[in-house]
This record gives sequence, C-alpha cells and structure tokens, in this order.
Amino acid sequence: MGYDGVVIATFTDFGSDGPYLGQVRAAIYQRAAGVPVVDVFPDLPAFNVRAAAYLLPAYSQYLPVGSICLCVVDPGVGTDRGALAVLADGRWYVGPDNGLLSQVIRRASSIQAFSLTWHPRVLSSSFHGRDLFAPVCAMLADGEDPPGDPVDTGTLQLPDWPDDLREVVYVDGYGNAVTGLRAGQLPLTSRLEIAGVGCQYRRTFDEAPPRTPFWYANANGLVEIAVAGSSARALLNLGVGESFHVMR
Amino acid sequence: MGYDGVVIATFTDFGSDGPYLGQVRAAIYQRAAGVPVVDVFPDLPAFNVRAAAYLLPAYSQYLPVGSICLCVVDPGVGTDRGALAVLADGRWYVGPDNGLLSQVIRRASSIQAFSLTWHPRVLSSSFHGRDLFAPVCAMLADGEDPPGDPVDTGTLQLPDWPDDLREVVYVDGYGNAVTGLRAGQLPLTSRLEIAGVGCQYRRTFDEAPPRTPFWYANANGLVEIAVAGSSARALLNLGVGESFHVMR
Amino acid sequence: MGYDGVVIATFTDFGSDGPYLGQVRAAIYQRAAGVPVVDVFPDLPAFNVRAAAYLLPAYSQYLPVGSICLCVVDPGVGTDRGALAVLADGRWYVGPDNGLLSQVIRRASSIQAFSLTWHPRVLSSSFHGRDLFAPVCAMLADGEDPPGDPVDTGTLQLPDWPDDLREVVYVDGYGNAVTGLRAGQLPLTSRLEIAGVGCQYRRTFDEAPPRTPFWYANANGLVEIAVAGSSARALLNLGVGESFHVMR
Repeated sequence: MGYDGVVIATFTDFGSDGPYLGQVRAAIYQRAAGVPVVDVFPDLPAFNVRAAAYLLPAYSQYLPVGSICLCVVDPGVGTDRGALAVLADGRWYVGPDNGLLSQVIRRASSIQAFSLTWHPRVLSSSFHGRDLFAPVCAMLADGEDPPGDPVDTGTLQLPDWPDDLREVVYVDGYGNAVTGLRAGQLPLTSRLEIAGVGCQYRRTFDEAPPRTPFWYANANGLVEIAVAGSSARALLNLGVGESFHVMR
Repeated sequence: MGYDGVVIATFTDFGSDGPYLGQVRAAIYQRAAGVPVVDVFPDLPAFNVRAAAYLLPAYSQYLPVGSICLCVVDPGVGTDRGALAVLADGRWYVGPDNGLLSQVIRRASSIQAFSLTWHPRVLSSSFHGRDLFAPVCAMLADGEDPPGDPVDTGTLQLPDWPDDLREVVYVDGYGNAVTGLRAGQLPLTSRLEIAGVGCQYRRTFDEAPPRTPFWYANANGLVEIAVAGSSARALLNLGVGESFHVMR
Repeated sequence: MGYDGVVIATFTDFGSDGPYLGQVRAAIYQRAAGVPVVDVFPDLPAFNVRAAAYLLPAYSQYLPVGSICLCVVDPGVGTDRGALAVLADGRWYVGPDNGLLSQVIRRASSIQAFSLTWHPRVLSSSFHGRDLFAPVCAMLADGEDPPGDPVDTGTLQLPDWPDDLREVVYVDGYGNAVTGLRAGQLPLTSRLEIAGVGCQYRRTFDEAPPRTPFWYANANGLVEIAVAGSSARALLNLGVGESFHVMR
C-alpha cells in the first residue's frame, strides 16, 4: 500500500471508551486501507477548545514530518462553523475552524491553510470526525491535495488567546496536572503557586520529597505539576481550568 | 498480505482498559497477521445482552460490506450456550448464541447463519472472545468458510424483545444517553418524557437552550438524549435501563 | 513490510486514555513502520512494580514466540536505574531494571539478558517508554541485536519477592479481582479467605450462586475472585494489595 512514513494521528475529546474513535478509524481505513492510525490524544478535555489548543502543538511536535493530525474538539458541530486543513511545519492538521488549531498556526514557521469545501454524500450533524475529517485525512495520506480553497492565514479569525496559558489544561491518569505554559519560558528557579500551595522545580520525580507538590518540564515541553508517588489532582483538588501564578 | 477492504471490528463489553481487547487482537494477528482490526465499541454495557443487541446493528451499519464483527457480551461463557457466525446483509457477525445478534438477524434483508462447531486446542471457560471468536473471525478474514453447520434462521431461538427499545442502552463519555429507539420511527414533533422531564427535538446541540435536555437523531440513527454543553447523565441521573415515553 | 509473526505487545501503567500509549506507538512506527503493535495490558497498577511483575508472565504467555513485550511501570524513571532487554523462552521483554521483569526471569527455562547501553539523541527524564524502550523494541522487530551488553542473569539483582503473591494485583472493569497466585498451585478444593469472607472454587460464573464471592482459574492461569453478575470489588471493597489466605 506504501504509506511510507505517513501516520494519521488522532487528537480528540472522544475518550478511548465509547464508539467514536473506532468509527473514525474504520472511516479512514475505508479510503486508505493500509495507513497506520495512532490515537495520540484520545481524551482532550471535553468541549474545551481553548485548553486543547495548547495541548495540540506540544503533543504533535514529536510526530514525524508528513504526519496527518485529525483534530476534533467540536462543540459547534452541525452549525456553520468552517473546517480547515493546515500544513504547519510539514505536518497536516485537519479539524474545525473554531480556534482548536490557533496555537499550531501561531507558532508555525511555515504554514499553508485551506478552507475545506468537500462534503461527503451523507454528513451527520453531530459526527464530522467520522464523516468529514476522517475522509479528508485519508485523502491527504493518499497524496491528494486538500479538498478546499487556499486561505491567507493572515485573514483567519484566530481567538484572542495568550501565547502560553497559565492554567491546568489536562490532568492525566496518575493525577499529574499538565499546564498550557511551555517550560522553556520559565527559569528553573521559578516558584509556582497553585491552589494556594507553592511548588518548586524538580528535574525528576525521584528528586521530589514525598507528598510535596512540585513542577517539572514534562516530556512534551510543558510545565506539569505533580506529587511523587501520589496524585496532584487529589492532593490539591486540581481540575482543568485551575490557574496558577509564577512567583518569580 | 492482501486483506483488501476486509476489517475485523470488535463490539465487546471488555472496556478499553484491561487485558482483554489486546489479547483478542493478538489472537487475531496470530492467524491473520495483516488484517486491520478496529475496536468499534469497546464498552458495551457489561453483561447486558439486551441493551447491546440494539447497539450492534446501529453501530455496525456504517462498516463496509465484507466487514467481520466480533461480538462479545457473554455472561453465560463456559456454559453450553451455542456460538454463531451470521452473514447479515454482507457483514459477518460472530458471537455467542445468547440473543446478542437477535436484532441484527431480525432486521437483515439477506441472512445466512452457522452454528460454530470448531474448537481450539485449548478453550478457557471464561474467555471465548480470545480462544474461539477471534480465531473464527481470522478464518473468515482469510476467506475460509465458517467452521460450523448451516442453521435455518427460522429455527433460531431469538428472545422475545421488541423491534425498538424505549430505554437508555448506553451513556457515553460526554453524558449523552443513547436509546434503543431508531430515530426514523419518530416524528420530529414528538416529545419524550424521561426521568420526569420532557424533551423536545433539536437538530444540533447548538440549537438547544443551555441546561435543557433535548433529543436528537444521533450519527448512528438512534434517539439520543443530551444537554448542550453539559451531561444528561448528571442532570437527569440517567443510566442504562432507564425507560422513557413518547408523548405523541 | 515483512514482520511475519512479530508483534510488539505493550504492558504499561499508562492507561488507555491519556497521551502516552499513542506516543509510544508513534515512536515504534517511526523506526519500524509496518510492525503490528498490540496494547495487551494498558492499565497495570500505577507505580506498582511488584504487582505488575506477577501479571507480566501470566498475560504474555499466550503471545507467540518471537513477540516483543514493551514493559513500563517505572516510578524511578530519570534516576540511574538500569534498563534491560531479556529474551525469555523465545519472547523479548524490554523495560526498566527495577524488578518489573523479575518473575518473567525467574520462571523462564531459557534466558538471555542484556543491559541496554543505547541512548537516543534526546532522552526525556520522564518518558523512557517513548524515548528509549519503543526504539529498542523497534530495533528488535527489525532483527537487530539488542543495543547493550550481555549480562549473566545470575548476577542480576532481583527483588526478594515470593514465587506467587497471595494478594490482589489487579481489579478489572467488571470488578473481578486478579491475584498473583497461579491457579495450578492450588487444589480445587481450596477455600480462600479474603476481606473476612470465604470463597469456594467454581469452574464458571454460571455455576456460582448470585451475590456469593467465589474463586476460579482465570483465562490466564491466575486465581481470580469474582461474583456472578456483580462486582467483587464493590461487594468486598477490594483493591490492589488486599491479601488473602488459603484455608485448604
């Protein structure tokens, strides 16, 4: 089949349970039978376009150039919001035009954008991941042009969100709180204050005293708040949207 | 390897966590190394054969003809309940003979059924998904005949369940409640009453007022009860088995 | 691409939600594009190396010889703990040198071990699953030698853990409690006492009276405590680490 090096990577708020990711995958295989599909982020925060917008560049940066990212956090599905395919620094991002791709677009050195005009024969009003974005990703994997019109990225309406977000954008299964702040923006001497508690920097979990929240640069370059051998979520009662301060 | 177009799709109550789906997949690959496997419904309601029977036709209808559905909700595993392979409208369904395939069988225009007689060398008493159904699906993917005896579908003992089920049969990760009623059976002017609350029809989430339960035709053709930007499960305290009325 | 029969099987505590398993898979595909990857155990007990050590041999025994198991329960990631590739009875196990592979090593009839010396260009301090173990598994799938030094397994520092563990090591989605005791070590007449309740042996769920905890030999050869049509976890308030007695 010959998809050498091409991978379709999904970034969605569908969850790994439920009938959504499987139907997306089946729709991709129907057009591009041999393409590898990887569910990179199956549980972006539900309906939370803004939080997801900061996770997308961080968690797609390690994918090889040529990868195709199917991106769905789409509370406005079925309305007349547009749909985009964006080629940013060599990786495709396909998804709704609702701000989800805004941080990918802002940070890219090289960018081309297309407003999708293609429609499937049957388009449900609630599952464009399966009906629209999956077939478009399969077309791109097959080397076809994006089925839409080129857009000047300068004219795209991007939401007025900051370059980095000083909020929790995801809490993982261990209870670690991922933030929208790139660790490279922060001196290692910085202290953070979150939920009334101060956090120092530690390089590894092993260097942190037990039951003491700390921050570190996670494997995707974001500031993450954790507790060694325990759960920052439980200890600090953290959830997506919790904001924090950098003390210096 | 040449499984052009053939996909094995799993419909199980195993959950995407846990060691079950992976072992099923490994068992399939052992006989049919190159076949694509898609977990379409990894979390059918546990032990609930009746609810799952209504989900199966709705969530397999978008799979291409030639697909092979491995179906497991099997509280009677290890007893002498039979096992079936059914070819319904061009798709194979392989699973226990416990009613799980009943709605697929009833709704099919064209049908052939086989009672499985093949046994693996080692058959566990609790995991026929891995030991029996996975190898049979792999055989079908390889173009082999189903390893069993043809059955007259008229003689199959199907449970006495209604054509549509006016109950919640699944609650998804967003808190939306999927029912066993096909939306095509209902005028769009119908009001539903569930958990003491009336629900009107809305075409999309965007058309619904906030915090107001509504019903819509979901992307798989079933009536689904939802709340825009929130969780019907939480708001109405819904679970699988909750029944509802159609007011007109 | 010709990975005939080779499968990379993951055994991790990452969970099927979250961005970890997908990144591991993408890292594998980047070096070994066509190799099948199966997530056999996506939710080993978090940080619990000892419990996971007893699950690993039980849940990898049905994989074909030639399989490559990527094993990650790694609370000491980023410290100077070593990393291993072990060929045990024809299957590779790749993971941290922290005791996780101890029961695989102890039970193997034929064994070769290698201390990994290879390092990627960029090695995060918290995600060796993606940065180190995934590429090494891909190398093995490509038929390369393990990138490290042979170790005399007699000199490996294995933790002083018993041959079988009379504790709950995993609770599945149905609420069944898997233990670290191999069922073959126990006469079927044995009674177990757990959480103050006695449990008899039953061959199948169907043979057990309702709401009565029983034990059986699960499909992977371990003693498992269950309740027919219900949850042993809920009924007995069981969690990982709960110990039990064999009354005989």
